Formats: sequence, C-alpha cells, structure tokens
Amino acid sequence: MYILGIDPGSRTTGWAVIEVEGRKFKYVDSGVLKFDKIPEFLDRLATISSSIKDIVSMYRPDEISVEALIYVKSIPALSKLAQARGALIAGLSDKYQGKITEYSPNLIKSSVTGHGLASKESVDRSLSMIFGKLDFKSHDESDALAIALCHALNRGQRAKIKGKSSHTRTKARTLKEVFSK
Amino acid sequence: MYILGIDPGSRTTGWAVIEVEGRKFKYVDSGVLKFDKIPEFLDRLATISSSIKDIVSMYRPDEISVEALIYVKSIPALSKLAQARGALIAGLSDKYQGKITEYSPNLIKSSVTGHGLASKESVDRSLSMIFGKLDFKSHDESDALAIALCHALNRGQRAKIKGKSSHTRTKARTLKEVFSK
Repeated sequence: MYILGIDPGSRTTGWAVIEVEGRKFKYVDSGVLKFDKIPEFLDRLATISSSIKDIVSMYRPDEISVEALIYVKSIPALSKLAQARGALIAGLSDKYQGKITEYSPNLIKSSVTGHGLASKESVDRSLSMIFGKLDFKSHDESDALAIALCHALNRGQRAKIKGKSSHTRTKARTLKEVFSK
Repeated sequence: MYILGIDPGSRTTGWAVIEVEGRKFKYVDSGVLKFDKIPEFLDRLATISSSIKDIVSMYRPDEISVEALIYVKSIPALSKLAQARGALIAGLSDKYQGKITEYSPNLIKSSVTGHGLASKESVDRSLSMIFGKLDFKSHDESDALAIALCHALNRGQRAKIKGKSSHTRTKARTLKEVFSK
C-alpha cells in the first residue's frame, strides 16, 4: 500500500511516498514543489493544484495525509498559506476519491520521535532509523516523509486526527508502540 | 463577450454571468452554490472546486472576476475563507486559462454605485437600473453580479486591481463615467 504525505506551503510544498506492508515501511520517493518563482499569487494557486495532481497521477497513492493548517501569526501569511492549502486539497480531490487525513505538527513529531516538541534534527534521526540514510533537499521534504510515516503508524486508529497543534489532546501512536507489539 | 463574477465564501459562493457588447450589459444567469450542508471541511473544498468547474464549463466565460480576499477578524473564519478561495481559484484555473481579475469590495461598490461604502440596498438599486428587476436568492448572488459589472466597467483600465479594501487607492470607473462618454 502506498501512502502520500504532504507538507503544504504557499512557496514550497514537500511530498513523500512510502510503501507499507504490515509493519514494513519502505521509502519510495519524495521531493519539493517550488512556487516562489511564480510572481502572480493566483497563478501560483493554479500551479499548486496542477503539480499535486501530477504527483497523485504518478504514484496513485492508496491513502493521503496532510499536515493540519498552522495558524501563523501574520494575517497576510496565514491568508496565503490557507489559500495554497485550499488549492492543494482541490488538486488532490480531483485525482483521489479517498479520505484525506490531517495531522497536527505536534502529533506528527510525537508519532515519529515520541516527543511532540521534538526538533527537526530529532525527526530526521527517527526517519533515518526507519528508512535508512536519505539526502533531503529541505525540511519540507523530510516533514512530508514524517507525515506519511505518522499516517502509517496511526491509520485505522481513529477516523480523523486534526486540530491546532496546541489544542491537540489525542495521543499519538509512536514507532516504539507499533514495533513492541 | 461573457463575464463571470464570483463572490467566494466557505459556506456559500455567489456567481453571475453577464454579456457585454460595447456599452450594452445584459444579465445572463446567476446563482448561489451552497456548501454548508457538507460536514467535513476537506470535502467542502473538493465540492467548491468541482462546482465552479461546472459553472465555467457551462457558460465558458471570456473573462472572470473575483472579489479580493477580505481579512475577516476571526482567525478560524479567515483560514476557512482563504482555503475555500484557494480551492475556488484552483477549480477556475482548471477550466479557464485566462487572467482572473480581483477587485476589492470598496472598488466594486464604488464602480457600481459611485460610493465605496454604499449599502447592499444601494448596490441592488444600481443593478436593477442596469439589468432590470431581478429576484436574487441572497446577497451572495447580487454581489457576484456587482463583481461581474465592476469588471465590465473597469476591464482594460489596468492590469489588475486588488488588495485589502482599506488599502485600495485605485479609483473605480463608475457607471456614470462610462455612460457619459
């Protein structure tokens, strides 16, 4: 089974595909979509939507997980991030009929490292332990892989896990729990 | 030439199509897309995108104008509105390759009535003067018609008119100006 994880942004969007067979997790591919060179914001939204469609058409994931929207403090930044996210979800929905699961940043970190406030480096270390040494272009790419892994660990646990990071009370299912069973 | 005007929202979206031939403006059709009965927000985004695609496929507008994003005060409301808008733009871009022009609420009112802070009733009166008596289901629908009319009056005047309403300094081209020439 293929899982696509996505870390959406208005300037760049990380994506990662993993293969899951029982407790075996295998890295398939990942990358970063860049939109920051597109001057007009409406054109950027169109490209975000069409680029993610291409990824879905290429890998035909069985399930998709996306990082929940973070309420960034700057209102113009939030409005751009949210519009980009809307365009991304529209693009995904055009090519994929299944459920899109959202995870808060804290729950993703908690699942992957055991700590909700883990550093980027700590997340990267956990990813290396599972998938082997990988050379990421940016944190958007490793974040997307963490989102895919988080879904692999938590899928079937509950219908939907989402919400603003600071409000998330749902307990993450960690690597340790999954592999100690 | 057909112009599609859109008033985007996360619960409802108004749309209106007008025909423009020189100084003749004719009402073609309008309506309100409703998404508030869809419980899951991500499903709503998918429906917003697919519904607007259907409108574009049906009327094949030559030009499209959309109300600029308003920075509503509530952060959760803004994030929903902005995501809905992103999904809408993605849907439009899938079926329409031309430029989408954005107009601030003040500029729309100013074009249609001569006053940037005009009431909804004043906007409706101006619309009736141009298009005859119309029975609107809601203000989303009449707003969309005002957006289409605003574009008919301002198209070709400048490449793009947008921005947060209170920051807009661009002068609107009004009905009076257009018809007095």
